[in-house]
Order: sequence, then structure tokens, then C-alpha cells
Amino acid sequence: MNAEILCVGTELLIGQTVNTNATYLAQELAALGISLYWVTTVGDNPARLDAAIRQAASRADLVLVTGGLGPTADDITTEAIAQVMGEPLVERPEERDRITAYFERVRRFATASNYKMALFPPSAELIPNATGTASGMAVTLDRATFMTFPGVPFEMKAMWETWARPRLAAQGGGTIRSALLKYAGIGEAQLAEQVASWLEGSNPSVAPYAAAGEVHLRVTAMADTAQAADAMLAPVVAELQAIRPYYFGRDDETLPSVVGQLLLEAGATLAVAESCTGGLLASRVTDVAGASRYFKGGVVAYLPEIKSGMLGLPEDILGNGAVNQAVAEQLAEAARRVLGADWGLGVTGFASAGPGVPDSDVGLIWGAVAGPDGVVAESFRYGARMPRETLKHRATQAVLDLARRRLSGLS
Amino acid sequence: MNAEILCVGTELLIGQTVNTNATYLAQELAALGISLYWVTTVGDNPARLDAAIRQAASRADLVLVTGGLGPTADDITTEAIAQVMGEPLVERPEERDRITAYFERVRRFATASNYKMALFPPSAELIPNATGTASGMAVTLDRATFMTFPGVPFEMKAMWETWARPRLAAQGGGTIRSALLKYAGIGEAQLAEQVASWLEGSNPSVAPYAAAGEVHLRVTAMADTAQAADAMLAPVVAELQAIRPYYFGRDDETLPSVVGQLLLEAGATLAVAESCTGGLLASRVTDVAGASRYFKGGVVAYLPEIKSGMLGLPEDILGNGAVNQAVAEQLAEAARRVLGADWGLGVTGFASAGPGVPDSDVGLIWGAVAGPDGVVAESFRYGARMPRETLKHRATQAVLDLARRRLSGLS
Repeated sequence: MNAEILCVGTELLIGQTVNTNATYLAQELAALGISLYWVTTVGDNPARLDAAIRQAASRADLVLVTGGLGPTADDITTEAIAQVMGEPLVERPEERDRITAYFERVRRFATASNYKMALFPPSAELIPNATGTASGMAVTLDRATFMTFPGVPFEMKAMWETWARPRLAAQGGGTIRSALLKYAGIGEAQLAEQVASWLEGSNPSVAPYAAAGEVHLRVTAMADTAQAADAMLAPVVAELQAIRPYYFGRDDETLPSVVGQLLLEAGATLAVAESCTGGLLASRVTDVAGASRYFKGGVVAYLPEIKSGMLGLPEDILGNGAVNQAVAEQLAEAARRVLGADWGLGVTGFASAGPGVPDSDVGLIWGAVAGPDGVVAESFRYGARMPRETLKHRATQAVLDLARRRLSGLS
Repeated sequence: MNAEILCVGTELLIGQTVNTNATYLAQELAALGISLYWVTTVGDNPARLDAAIRQAASRADLVLVTGGLGPTADDITTEAIAQVMGEPLVERPEERDRITAYFERVRRFATASNYKMALFPPSAELIPNATGTASGMAVTLDRATFMTFPGVPFEMKAMWETWARPRLAAQGGGTIRSALLKYAGIGEAQLAEQVASWLEGSNPSVAPYAAAGEVHLRVTAMADTAQAADAMLAPVVAELQAIRPYYFGRDDETLPSVVGQLLLEAGATLAVAESCTGGLLASRVTDVAGASRYFKGGVVAYLPEIKSGMLGLPEDILGNGAVNQAVAEQLAEAARRVLGADWGLGVTGFASAGPGVPDSDVGLIWGAVAGPDGVVAESFRYGARMPRETLKHRATQAVLDLARRRLSGLS
């Protein structure tokens, strides 16, 4: 079965609303094993909506329509679909009563336009809306089943979960299962070349994606049952997880959560001292629930006087500038010592151009990991025009990956 | 002129990525007065991409294509467009050199597949990518101009801003001008009620949006010239900016940048001591370019021992728990004292449920601002089911807004 999502609403075309409905439904369709081939967005315009409905009816088996079910003049989805079906709009008395009751309960008057939401083509099966006023409908049009939902995300989700998903799941043939494998310290092209033979397979399929400072491989298998799909996934996943030292986690795991897990397993604590990342390294460590079991705290040493004063870095080291191997190592050692932790991370770098920063140095980062058995440091280079916030994030990725490798004995 | 956005990428069709590129470009097109009629998303599938390209070429004047410019086998956008144009792909030596140089700079090897990004149809004009490896292109196809951009949002935005937008703006007829006004410490509905009479106007129009921990009003005016549109905007903007103490900035201004500007004007310095926000407060302050002119640094006091040890908070205060007015005030004072700054911010709270945290306390935040004339503190409450990262962000918003009001004499 293949599907199309048709989103209706001028607010999407002027950028007022991010289309999270399409993302949600895309995830849901993938979980049901239904292939989504197209997402189309049109405004509240009768001619273009008509064309989009006809096109979807001609190429998809299942069309999920969101938006345009409300009471105002620019809510035209039901009418447009009925027109293509060649059916009139007829009032459903039970819907009229429901709308009257809804407005009585919220102590407002239902206006004539509210009763527009009681009009449906005769052949439509209604999709009840327990959390709002506009019901959706399921109709057949050419080869396709159309299902309509309001644009309000929580109404759409409730209707999807209680009505549409169970029906589609009951019809479904195959099941899709997938795993998201994550890699750091390697580029997308380099990883793709390393797994080239897998990328040609179709079931299981393997697809690479560049994410923020990491690369993901999505492995997907389709089979009659979840167990069968899982059995197809397992050997591929095992082989792709063996790509060391780059592979670091799967699905919801992140570099900070993996580092946290390694610390918990070792019964060890962590502290950080950071310069160019300005607090983002500590913040990412503390994005992990339960980080207080291993994270003691950090120092953001933005100005040199904090590095020398609070952290006690020797003046002669700082005399050579704030971005070099010695400073990164001293920051990592100071984090351990001053905050009393088993492991310390240090990071320094040039996050953007500024007075006294040669252009060639913008994007240069030094990271270090200090532990019970000494300190290691590494430098990283990023594009000089990378936005400041992106560069900060990349620098935290680099240092966390250094920590991951060290803690797991990979470097 | 009418436009279509064509997004290419299977990651969008399996719901792995929210399509924020489409939202951004939709906003930009609206600001240029170009009508966006369609947004189409297809996967990395040659046949469906081919059909989408042909359809867009037949109905739109301008087609903005995002995604599929990268080095891997499933990056097929350039090739697919060239095929519809009936042109071959030919290597551009200067692009090859640029790719080689890029990889030398980041100290990785360019693989054969990376050089795929140097191939373009002969008639294409290149859209330079200063922040990444894949250039885009502008080509003519039937009645339409196609412009291609990488799917990586910051690369796409930089190319749009420096190359595409100026060209399209120069062609435009009528001009739309708009201002984005930003408010903190007030809810969307409350602000909308306060500006209700403005919301009914159509030119200038005023539209409210809820953003992360703040509310925005977009004011838009359309006229024959930019000057005429600006003249229509000015009185409305002035009136809406007078909504104190909630209004804090416009357009690219953020709470951290506004606080930074107030510090620069006062010739004063800042330091922070944070608990529940775990470094995010310092990180947001240092997201502002030039923050080193006023930001000295910070301490992330995640565990009580850091609060008592490094920051010298009295044990008897910590004995009453880590989240209360006294702890927030002591953190703010300690930030000033220990880091030697004129102003100190302190924040503590319960970011998520945990041992010893009553359910009713999750989402409770205490923030404080200490300055030359004493310390003020305020508590804030957020939903207990708010995701951890969102709650951390809200807490930083609350403390930064407290600082803004204090520094600008509003509280």
C-alpha cells in the first residue's frame, strides 16, 4: 500500500505554521509498513485543492488529508472532496446535535457557520473527534481511500490513534521494523563507502543521513510479522555496529547519554571546564535524565582571568594564547581537580572571528579528556563560516566523542 | 510570480526530519511578496522525483528545491533536473578544487563520491555554498527558474540569504515589509487580547505566534515601495513596542542579545551560577557574538558539594533543599563574587522528577539577579510534563527576562 499526505492551509504556505502533522503521520505510516511517497501542501484555494485531490486519487492507495475542516469560509476540504466525488453535501442530524451540545457545554452560541461542520457527502463514514468540534470522514475516490482530519495537531492525533490507526493496522499485510544506528568522527561519504554493499540492498535496506555532527544509518526490514522483521534486522545491525571506533549508539541514544552510561558502569564522576562552548558542553551532559548520578558540575571559563584565577591555569601557558593543546589539557585537569571528579573534559577554540583571531584559526577546536590515568587531547577543524551555535555544538560532539572512546577503551 | 517548494529526501517521508526548511522558505517568499502555491515532498526515488520536477516546471514560475545535493548514491537532485533539461552532467574544475580544499582544511580525505558534487549541467549558474561542500545551481526549465539548495538548514539559509534572496528582491514588484516584535513574561492569549483591535487590520496586518518561552507579533505592510511600506509599519510598531514590561526586542534580537546590549551600554560585566539549567544559561549568553566583551564565565553547580565548596554557599541554606529563594539569591551573589563580575545570575529548580522531588515541585524554578544595588529573586512554575530540555530553556528565558527588566530599570 502506498500513501500520500495532503495538507491544506494557507498558514502552511506563508510559513506561519511548521508542518509537524506531516512528520507525525509519516512516522505513523512507517510504523504500519505503509510506504509514504508524497507529501503535498496547498492553500485554501478551490482550484488548486481540486487538482491536488484528483492527483492524489490517481496515484495513491491511501490519502490522509489534514486541515480545512473548520467553520470558516476558508475551510473547504470536505466540500472540495465531495465535489470531486460528485456527491452533494447533506446535513447529518446527529452531528448537528453534537455541535449544539458542544457549544452549550463551553457556554458559547453555535453560529450558522458552525453547523457547516455537520455537512458530509452521503457515502462518507465519519471519523469522530472527541477533543474538538469538526469530525473527519473516510471516503473512497477512484482507487484511493481518503481520510480527513482537522489541522489542530492534538485533535488529528487523537482521531488517528483511536480510529484510523487501528483500522489500517488490521488491514495491514507486512510490518516494518527499523533501527537507527549512530556514528561520530566520520563523514557521511566515508561511512557510505564503508557500507556501500549494504546500501544496495532493499530488504533490509540501509540508508545514510548526515545529522548534526554525526552520521546515521537507518536499517529497515519488512516482513509478515514483527518477529520476522526483527530477525532480518539483527545480523545487519550487528555488522554495522561493529564499525569501530565510529559507531556509538542506536535509536534514542545520544553521545551525552552514551558517555553517561559508560560513567555509570565505571562508577565514575565527571566535571567539565569549557571556554568556546560557553556552557553548552555541561548543558548537553545535563540534558540526560539522571545526569546528577555522575555529573558534578562545570566551569565556563570564558575570559582568561577565570582560567588563571578560578581554575588555576599557569600564566605562562595562557601567554601562548587560549587555544592550543596545553590549554585544553589544563582545562580538563582543572575540571577534575577543582570540581573533585574522576574524569574531566576541557574544550577551547575559536568559535567566531574576533580581534586577535587570524581568519585561518576560526573553527579550530582543542578538546581534552583527563582521567585517573592521564590526559589526552585532540584538535578538530570546522568551516570558518559555520554559524556560531552550530560550531559550539560540533565542538561538544567532538569532545564527547573523545570521552566516549577513552571511557570505552577505544583510544 | 508564483512559487513551489520541492523538498527531496526519504528522511522527510519516514518522519525522521521535521521539514523546517519549507517553513523558512515559505516565510521568506511571503516577505518578498512571492505567492507560494505548492509545497511538494518526494523521496530519493528517480521516477517520482522526475514527475515532481516536470509538474513543478509546468505550473510554477519559481521552484526552490532543497535536499539531495550530497555525495551519496541517494543524492540525485542535480542529476534528475539535468535529465529533464536534456543536459549532461559536466565537472566544473573550480568546484573540484574547492571540494579538495575543503577536505584538506577539515583534514579528511575527499573520496570519489565527494567529487560528484562538482558535476553540473553546462547551462547552470552555480549558487555558492560558503558553509558546506555542495553548491546549488540555478537553471531554467520550461517557464520556471529552478534553484537548488542542500537540505542542511544552515547551509540552505546562508545560500538563500547571500545569493537567492537579493536576486529575487531585485526583480520584485510590490514590496512587503514586516517587523517581528518579541514579548516575554506574557502568554499568547493575554497579549492577543491586549492587541485585539490591531489583529483585525489587514494592511498593516498583525499576527501573534507563540514561540519558545516568548510570544511574537508579526506586523506586515504591503505597498509599492519599501519606503511606503515602512511608513505604514512605523506607527503600529511604535505602539506595539510600548507594551511594557513585556516587549523586549525585534527581528533578530533575542533575550541574551538584549541583556548583552544593556550590559555594554552600562559598561558592566556578567557571570552566572546555575543548577537545574546545567550550563544552558551560560551557553545562551555566549550564543551572542562578542559576548566576551561582558561575559566573564559561569559555574554549573549541579551537585550540592559544588554549591557549598566552589561557590561557598552556607550549609544551613542548602539544608533547606536546593530549590528556594535563598539558594537562588546566594547563587547570583556567588556568581558576582567568585567570578568577579558586576552582575550575577542564579537559577535553581526541579527540571524533572527524581528521588526526593515531590511531584508538585517538578517545574518549579527560582531565578535571581544580583547587582551593585542588591539582589532580587522570583519563582516561576512550568508544567510538570514539560520535556526536560524545554523546561531548561524556559528557566533560562525567565532568568534572562528578570535580568533584562532589572538592567533596564523596569523592575
